[in-house]
Amino acid sequence: MTKPVVLTGIKSTGTPHLGNYIGAIKPALRMAASAENQGIYFIADYHALNSVQDPVLFRQYAYEIAATWLALGLNPEEVIFYRQSDVPELMELHWILSCVAPKGLMNRAHAYKAAVDRNSTEGLDKDHGVNMGLFSYPILMAADILLFQSDKVPVGKDQIQHVEYARDLAEYFNRTFGDTLKLPEYVIQEETELLPGLDGRKMSKSYGNTISLFEEPARLRKLINKIKTDSSAPSEPKDPHGSTLFQLYKEFASTEEIDLLREKYKSGIGWGDVKKEVFLVIDRELAEARQKYRELLDNKELIDQILESGAAKARILAKAELVKIKKSIGL
Amino acid sequence: MTKPVVLTGIKSTGTPHLGNYIGAIKPALRMAASAENQGIYFIADYHALNSVQDPVLFRQYAYEIAATWLALGLNPEEVIFYRQSDVPELMELHWILSCVAPKGLMNRAHAYKAAVDRNSTEGLDKDHGVNMGLFSYPILMAADILLFQSDKVPVGKDQIQHVEYARDLAEYFNRTFGDTLKLPEYVIQEETELLPGLDGRKMSKSYGNTISLFEEPARLRKLINKIKTDSSAPSEPKDPHGSTLFQLYKEFASTEEIDLLREKYKSGIGWGDVKKEVFLVIDRELAEARQKYRELLDNKELIDQILESGAAKARILAKAELVKIKKSIGL
Repeated sequence: MTKPVVLTGIKSTGTPHLGNYIGAIKPALRMAASAENQGIYFIADYHALNSVQDPVLFRQYAYEIAATWLALGLNPEEVIFYRQSDVPELMELHWILSCVAPKGLMNRAHAYKAAVDRNSTEGLDKDHGVNMGLFSYPILMAADILLFQSDKVPVGKDQIQHVEYARDLAEYFNRTFGDTLKLPEYVIQEETELLPGLDGRKMSKSYGNTISLFEEPARLRKLINKIKTDSSAPSEPKDPHGSTLFQLYKEFASTEEIDLLREKYKSGIGWGDVKKEVFLVIDRELAEARQKYRELLDNKELIDQILESGAAKARILAKAELVKIKKSIGL
Repeated sequence: MTKPVVLTGIKSTGTPHLGNYIGAIKPALRMAASAENQGIYFIADYHALNSVQDPVLFRQYAYEIAATWLALGLNPEEVIFYRQSDVPELMELHWILSCVAPKGLMNRAHAYKAAVDRNSTEGLDKDHGVNMGLFSYPILMAADILLFQSDKVPVGKDQIQHVEYARDLAEYFNRTFGDTLKLPEYVIQEETELLPGLDGRKMSKSYGNTISLFEEPARLRKLINKIKTDSSAPSEPKDPHGSTLFQLYKEFASTEEIDLLREKYKSGIGWGDVKKEVFLVIDRELAEARQKYRELLDNKELIDQILESGAAKARILAKAELVKIKKSIGL
């Protein structure tokens, strides 16, 4: 491959919501649309196995992620799009990297430290509820990145460590076994404001304040109607700053529409009318994709087919690179 | 498979010595000779990668282990004999098991604890020099055992924990995902007295007191001549108890020969003569295998062929079981 490889992993731990869409999916799709890069996108289902241990949900979430990205326009002809568990070469590299990964490095990984902190706050043993999948996931993530000789990995600020660890492990490997692995770089994903959820806090599964990305219109309307507002009368002027509804609107409306609504806030508008506007722009942006999403989820064979053909492409690259890596260790 | 599966893993971390032969290889070969069991034997090269990080040695040790076992009579037509790294399904199961393996369990694994103890004795950070291959190797060992639905795993007393961990992980898995994995049992390998090395301590690579299993006769003789004895004159009676030479002799001689040498000890025999006798019985037992070993090591293509055909047999079992396991988690 001569084009730079840009790799994006998507953990299949739940049904995508609007916050995921604005914060992660939309920017990543913009990257995919660039013809300058070879985009590689994968559903990180083996990462999800840490926490999703219900076989029905495990399967369902992966389908939902696949259908979401395809419905939103990810083109499997242009990018390589696969399910992690369909590329077993990753697991082999995971073990090989384990043998050069200092345990001390894992002790300092964010997700593990967060679990330890939670446990100590609650007076529990530091490793309470921590499984080895959680503890060693930075190594699997490094395998995800390194096996495809990724040049760039777009990440949120809180995920920089993943790429740094991948670089560290690549360096350990190269120092031990000779120059083999390419060192990736991270690209901080363009800053988008955090999307607020139903209660005004950051939209997040853990707060239970999310709106599913492809909610049916009737239910989408209902959820938007639930968003907290103050008790000001319709005629009173309102401050767009700190207004959850305005923040939502901004992410889906055109500049002109945003200006217009700002004016209406100033001159006075009823919250019910704002909610209608918010519904309209969200529904407008997602209606077509929602339709496609439903069709795809009704045709899982097609999703399987697309992912399998993606995995076949991925495995050609993975196998070639693994042969090289195994040769370096003596195989 | 209807016969009980008996599984034996052999870590390829060095050239086998007489202590390995008496303590591990010989009893395991006896087990292989039994037609009641389906014997599975594998070269645990991916386990060795923890510590053997020189590609030339890594490769060489695996060939030496394969040649050793084949030369000593392991019949690849009757047993399944493969190189661990040729069965990538193991790495996949390793990850899956990681996701149900409590980190706390790994904190208590013998090999890790020994490393921590060494570090604390030397005033070093507890995880100094510990890589994640060492920390999580009990999970890979569990994968080795569970993927082949092993019934019995012959172990030395210090390795019981490996099988207990495999049982624990199988139980965690079954509890989480439904009854899938077969629980293995350990069989304590029949007690053999520890074989003494050149300095009288247990023969062990870490003491540097070993005699390679297939040492050339001239060098074998030289090494035996180095074994420490007391300064008693040839005519003086000698105590077979605690005599390194006598202990060595016992492992290779017939009952009659042992009785005869015991008599000679009592009536007086020169150490030089004892050494000759020891050389003779060792050389007698190993001469033919040594010849075969040399031939095999001169024909690595043949070793590769044998191991690859073993891996092909192993992968038929491994793939079928992995499909079952992946179905349980939702794949």
